[in-house]
Amino acid sequence: MTHRVGILGATGAVGQRFIQLLDGHPQFEIACLTASDASAGKPYREAAKWRLDSAIPKPVRDITVRATDPAEIPDDVDLLFSSLPSGVAAEIEPDLCAAGYVVSSNSSNDRMADDVPLTIPEINPGHLDLIEVQRDERGWDGALVKNPNCSTITMVPTLAALDEFGLERAQVSTLQAVSGAGYSGVTSMEIIDNAIPHIGGEEEKMETESRKLLGDFDGAELSLHSAEVAASCNRIPTIDGHLENVFAELADDPEPADVRAAMESYPSADLPSSPDQLIHVFGDDQPERPQPRMDRMRGDGMQVVAGGVRTTPAGVKYNCLAHNTIRGAAGASLLNGELLANEGWI
Amino acid sequence: MTHRVGILGATGAVGQRFIQLLDGHPQFEIACLTASDASAGKPYREAAKWRLDSAIPKPVRDITVRATDPAEIPDDVDLLFSSLPSGVAAEIEPDLCAAGYVVSSNSSNDRMADDVPLTIPEINPGHLDLIEVQRDERGWDGALVKNPNCSTITMVPTLAALDEFGLERAQVSTLQAVSGAGYSGVTSMEIIDNAIPHIGGEEEKMETESRKLLGDFDGAELSLHSAEVAASCNRIPTIDGHLENVFAELADDPEPADVRAAMESYPSADLPSSPDQLIHVFGDDQPERPQPRMDRMRGDGMQVVAGGVRTTPAGVKYNCLAHNTIRGAAGASLLNGELLANEGWI
Amino acid sequence: MTHRVGILGATGAVGQRFIQLLDGHPQFEIACLTASDASAGKPYREAAKWRLDSAIPKPVRDITVRATDPAEIPDDVDLLFSSLPSGVAAEIEPDLCAAGYVVSSNSSNDRMADDVPLTIPEINPGHLDLIEVQRDERGWDGALVKNPNCSTITMVPTLAALDEFGLERAQVSTLQAVSGAGYSGVTSMEIIDNAIPHIGGEEEKMETESRKLLGDFDGAELSLHSAEVAASCNRIPTIDGHLENVFAELADDPEPADVRAAMESYPSADLPSSPDQLIHVFGDDQPERPQPRMDRMRGDGMQVVAGGVRTTPAGVKYNCLAHNTIRGAAGASLLNGELLANEGWI
Amino acid sequence: MTHRVGILGATGAVGQRFIQLLDGHPQFEIACLTASDASAGKPYREAAKWRLDSAIPKPVRDITVRATDPAEIPDDVDLLFSSLPSGVAAEIEPDLCAAGYVVSSNSSNDRMADDVPLTIPEINPGHLDLIEVQRDERGWDGALVKNPNCSTITMVPTLAALDEFGLERAQVSTLQAVSGAGYSGVTSMEIIDNAIPHIGGEEEKMETESRKLLGDFDGAELSLHSAEVAASCNRIPTIDGHLENVFAELADDPEPADVRAAMESYPSADLPSSPDQLIHVFGDDQPERPQPRMDRMRGDGMQVVAGGVRTTPAGVKYNCLAHNTIRGAAGASLLNGELLANEGWI
Repeated sequence: MTHRVGILGATGAVGQRFIQLLDGHPQFEIACLTASDASAGKPYREAAKWRLDSAIPKPVRDITVRATDPAEIPDDVDLLFSSLPSGVAAEIEPDLCAAGYVVSSNSSNDRMADDVPLTIPEINPGHLDLIEVQRDERGWDGALVKNPNCSTITMVPTLAALDEFGLERAQVSTLQAVSGAGYSGVTSMEIIDNAIPHIGGEEEKMETESRKLLGDFDGAELSLHSAEVAASCNRIPTIDGHLENVFAELADDPEPADVRAAMESYPSADLPSSPDQLIHVFGDDQPERPQPRMDRMRGDGMQVVAGGVRTTPAGVKYNCLAHNTIRGAAGASLLNGELLANEGWI
Repeated sequence: MTHRVGILGATGAVGQRFIQLLDGHPQFEIACLTASDASAGKPYREAAKWRLDSAIPKPVRDITVRATDPAEIPDDVDLLFSSLPSGVAAEIEPDLCAAGYVVSSNSSNDRMADDVPLTIPEINPGHLDLIEVQRDERGWDGALVKNPNCSTITMVPTLAALDEFGLERAQVSTLQAVSGAGYSGVTSMEIIDNAIPHIGGEEEKMETESRKLLGDFDGAELSLHSAEVAASCNRIPTIDGHLENVFAELADDPEPADVRAAMESYPSADLPSSPDQLIHVFGDDQPERPQPRMDRMRGDGMQVVAGGVRTTPAGVKYNCLAHNTIRGAAGASLLNGELLANEGWI
Repeated sequence: MTHRVGILGATGAVGQRFIQLLDGHPQFEIACLTASDASAGKPYREAAKWRLDSAIPKPVRDITVRATDPAEIPDDVDLLFSSLPSGVAAEIEPDLCAAGYVVSSNSSNDRMADDVPLTIPEINPGHLDLIEVQRDERGWDGALVKNPNCSTITMVPTLAALDEFGLERAQVSTLQAVSGAGYSGVTSMEIIDNAIPHIGGEEEKMETESRKLLGDFDGAELSLHSAEVAASCNRIPTIDGHLENVFAELADDPEPADVRAAMESYPSADLPSSPDQLIHVFGDDQPERPQPRMDRMRGDGMQVVAGGVRTTPAGVKYNCLAHNTIRGAAGASLLNGELLANEGWI
Repeated sequence: MTHRVGILGATGAVGQRFIQLLDGHPQFEIACLTASDASAGKPYREAAKWRLDSAIPKPVRDITVRATDPAEIPDDVDLLFSSLPSGVAAEIEPDLCAAGYVVSSNSSNDRMADDVPLTIPEINPGHLDLIEVQRDERGWDGALVKNPNCSTITMVPTLAALDEFGLERAQVSTLQAVSGAGYSGVTSMEIIDNAIPHIGGEEEKMETESRKLLGDFDGAELSLHSAEVAASCNRIPTIDGHLENVFAELADDPEPADVRAAMESYPSADLPSSPDQLIHVFGDDQPERPQPRMDRMRGDGMQVVAGGVRTTPAGVKYNCLAHNTIRGAAGASLLNGELLANEGWI
């Protein structure tokens, strides 16, 4: 069965990725694209300054862009993907949910709200049942589901895999690509021959979202995971792919081989956009991997890649990497959409 | 009083920095330049492929390069600066010390040897007295003094400043410039639009050298500092300047303002190449600093620059930065040379 | 019909591209991989430090690498692709041709030899008949066919398309990617925040090869095209994709629209690796294209992309771009191999 | 004698360079800084987001920024340096000149106006006498003097030096640094691992401004130089320093050695900011120079650097380079200010 879907904020960087990823999708058909009022009424090919290195999919070129306004969304659309700026999203997403739409949103607003599922389908699919609580509390017919921040999503699958050893604390330093800030977010003067050890709000997102994703939902309430998380976030001159150094303190004392095995065997999900293997791990013979340019497109950009596992005085140390605008943004929302479809929420 | 000095490995990247930094030096005069046999006999301007953005100092252009051989060093040279590859250094430095020369070496061999002072003049000048032990044990008339690795030297001054709060553990992630690997160490294919989460041997150097630098020397024996250190080292596409994210766990519980004050007030040394202030700290209003391209030349490349201080579940978090081929290599050996001169070892 | 092919120099950068491009090829099956003596005897996966962002094709992983020695090539191999260093190629290619092998070579030696076809299949397929002359003169059973240099190959298709207007002179400035120099050819210290206005021998290659490619072969002798060509070659910090600024002086006085039409309608070849359209041209509304990162993979890396056409006091000005290691190297030799197969030379 | 000067647009990228270059200037003292209304009333250190790698000069830190409004400029200011956006400059510069101020402007408006001197002091100081014509025609007490575009200024000194051989035509391709577009002009997504073969309006500026600079002023009218100029402009991932490939067709047929000698001996000006030698030329032994990162700071950023001279079928080919925000912008206006002072116009 095919669902008709819409994309809110379809002309932006993440919006373009949605369109690229939805091209030929087995379950979803693009029925509606929205953007700012200035773009409304134009065919998509004119409204969007297309920046990906593949062409605009043919069926999308001539779709007329609509204003991002609940009144403009057709009734027969089942699911909306949102990559709106968080301020706009905070205003419009509740209206859409109240109007009965199910929204899978990449925007950062409301991620930590008690009744909003923050979900990575391979990690915490059960959190989706928070929708019941959400509907009760808010009186919505629709639903709002969030995916985490791109830097969080890169690390959390590896922490989930290590939790069998008793995760107690994690410190992470990130080396993040410029695309994470949007097309104009980082100027060339800021980043050529340079690095910036600060991304506004990013460290807090990693420290809180990680604990929610790894937390327990007992059917009524969601409790955060007990592990402490501390993050240090940096921007570096790479286009795509967030690389992260993690120190994980574990109650047990696993050998590197055990750590690698736990990651490699952590199950993926049976969804169209999930990779066959969730986490690929490089061995001792390739300590220099993963690397952004070499590894970001593994699993069509949806796999998490790890390596450099070793034991240190501060716990197990390893590196992980994921494509920040695919696995970390548009692909994350899309995957949540697939989970919503599979579980019958749409 | 002026000392006549020599540079071993004078044509390499660090050797060129030595020459640049010694230009107009108040205490030292270049009397001897050595390089590989292939360069011996040529004037320096022909032997060296000069790569710095200032010109070769005039007095050096026509100095005839000598082979790196103890027999070639003039007797009236008091001090030798060494930036030889560590394999070559391990062979030749002991011979030079036995022959009576005092060697201030940037090479990584023997840094952790029990009787070799590993010194940052502003941090542990007293360790220089290990030379007595060294001479006793090895029967040398000369002496061998080392400076730490460039990534270690960037962090240790900040840890020294925080030790008043009881340093218990430090985790560090580095974002290191390509010049740290030498002129041909990192290819452009490896690093453009990329990052490499591994630098051979670097993490171990940071984990061991830091504890030696912060350790106690009781006049007979040097004991390592009790703090645990764990490092994760990355190469990124910057030319000069290592940026590091540090999480420091401290017995006391200082506020960020106390941390900044401790760093800013940590004393510098009274040596020609020491900066007026050892550590410059950016405040809360500029969390995006320090940055490599903007801050590496502070204090003529000899100052350590910190910022981004905040409290996390994993201790105090901050960022620090230093110029890796000035403060972290040639400038470090030069500073040790100045300390050796001041303390009367030459 | 499938031909068994070999790759000489299979572990290098171009050799890896050959393997990637031959994966699933409809006509060619890899039967033999050669490399230096140090690699001989090892399975390919161990011999090669694989650097492409796709995995080593499964059938190739376990092929045992042979020494690059005529005695090692199996008899049933029909065609050899060569990406040997030109010095090695100059020694070994003639022996292989004498031994009866047909060699499609990317190496720069002998490209301008009177009896060696220098071929781009879409441009001058008829030059292949020089093989008759070659066999007569050299007494070979095999044959040696060359493709031009990567910077030449980017420009010549556009000049061929403009020759209907009477090409009289061309000036070109190139902005070339670092991969053109091989994996270790350009160090990061040389190119970050920099550009190098010199590539050894490159300008002469463009100036001579272009005229041979556009020249006439009358069945006995090949005459160079009469147009003058002047080149200025630069290396810039891009990974793949050579961008070139061309000023073409034409006897006629075509309008930009005519120039674009001539390029867009220039025929491609009916070969498996030829793109559907040989030259894609961006219009007036996108003067900022083509760009290396955005356009190098058009036509799977085999299309030439042009744009920015305008009339100047120095003739028609435009920009063109091609993927230097696909269309400009491995793909070029492969395409010549396909032409050799189609024309019955193997 | 010291002149009191003002800077219009003092908080922008070029404005910051003005402040840096005026620090310690022998003739000029900063008396007034203007910026947008939003900055007016604030001390400079708060109004400007300072982005240079040296600190804000002490005397400037606390100057109160004024609105860019003729009414706000103190009467005792003799000279105004302008780096306003060209639209703003076109409105306000005439008012200032009418009010009696002499304006040395880097803004692109009015550069080609018949009665506006477009001046490089070492090249065409005599054009300054156009001010008489300007005052006659416009009834101004003040005066408006322009410097050319940064890409023009890099090439024109070399063309001026070659005009003794009879300059007939010049083609140029540029590799321009991102700082030329202002701090936010080029995003990192646009330029990392990329190049952009288009800069709006730049080619026309080079083609027209060059001929005006090299033209004759007979005391009444200025005639353009007869040489044709054709330009192709590219943006590449460098921070500072425009590199340019020039093909110059000359009536005479000079040898490369003559070309180098003509450039090296071309006279500089006797002004505080002029370099001792106007053009430094690299010889045959260093064809890979000049390079942006290595050579942009020669002569404190005010020298033009050339190299790679050779004879081609399209005339003499060479490369040239200058620092685009020093020699090419703020330093150019400053130099014009020095000429205005020396010639008694202020």
